[in-house]
Amino acid sequence: MADPSTLSDRLRRGDVLASACPSRQVLRHMTSLWGVLVLLVLAQGTHRFSELRRRIDGVSERMLAQTLKQLEVDCLVRRVAFATVPPHVEYSLTPLGTEAAARIGDLTDWLELSMPAILAGQSQRDWA
Amino acid sequence: MADPSTLSDRLRRGDVLASACPSRQVLRHMTSLWGVLVLLVLAQGTHRFSELRRRIDGVSERMLAQTLKQLEVDCLVRRVAFATVPPHVEYSLTPLGTEAAARIGDLTDWLELSMPAILAGQSQRDWA
Repeated sequence: MADPSTLSDRLRRGDVLASACPSRQVLRHMTSLWGVLVLLVLAQGTHRFSELRRRIDGVSERMLAQTLKQLEVDCLVRRVAFATVPPHVEYSLTPLGTEAAARIGDLTDWLELSMPAILAGQSQRDWA
Repeated sequence: MADPSTLSDRLRRGDVLASACPSRQVLRHMTSLWGVLVLLVLAQGTHRFSELRRRIDGVSERMLAQTLKQLEVDCLVRRVAFATVPPHVEYSLTPLGTEAAARIGDLTDWLELSMPAILAGQSQRDWA
């Protein structure tokens, strides 16, 4: 990758602060709650739809299907359908999806470990 | 921080895959589109409301106010109101918010640099 500070590179790369940039749409999908959780679970390996639904507590069938479709369009998730009866469909991360999931994992690892500090801060606010 | 694999630590830390865990709510705020963009901009320093609104293309006044309030409750954003006429309100990151914003920044840096590959993948899909 060339130095990202060159002009041509700045023109070529995305700008999430600009509403017209296509990166805004991908960011919306990747960082929806369900998008984050799908990327996290798929980072552990290929899953079937029903397995994903079991792992991600609280997701509806409709929201999971919509999230997977969006991430597939964004080239982050690969969907493979086997011509069996009943149909067997598997979801996995693409190489781009693996890169995205690593960043998402850093974020959620930080969050899970920081929850005691966040909850302590919240209860201090409640008493203030 | 103790080894995160001990039982007491696993009980104490958050679990974003569990819908009842309070971390789920913080994750929802942090990774909303506007939450991500607010954390990104505040990582560059203290901003007033009107400055944030200008920097984050497309956000409405209502959504920005709601996002800032949520991040303030999550102890990621600090709001300081000066008793002046007209009132002067400044927003900045807390130490926890600075840590969160660093992870968010890694994610959006990756996304901005990966947009050419994502767009190329999407146009290949369109032809397939």
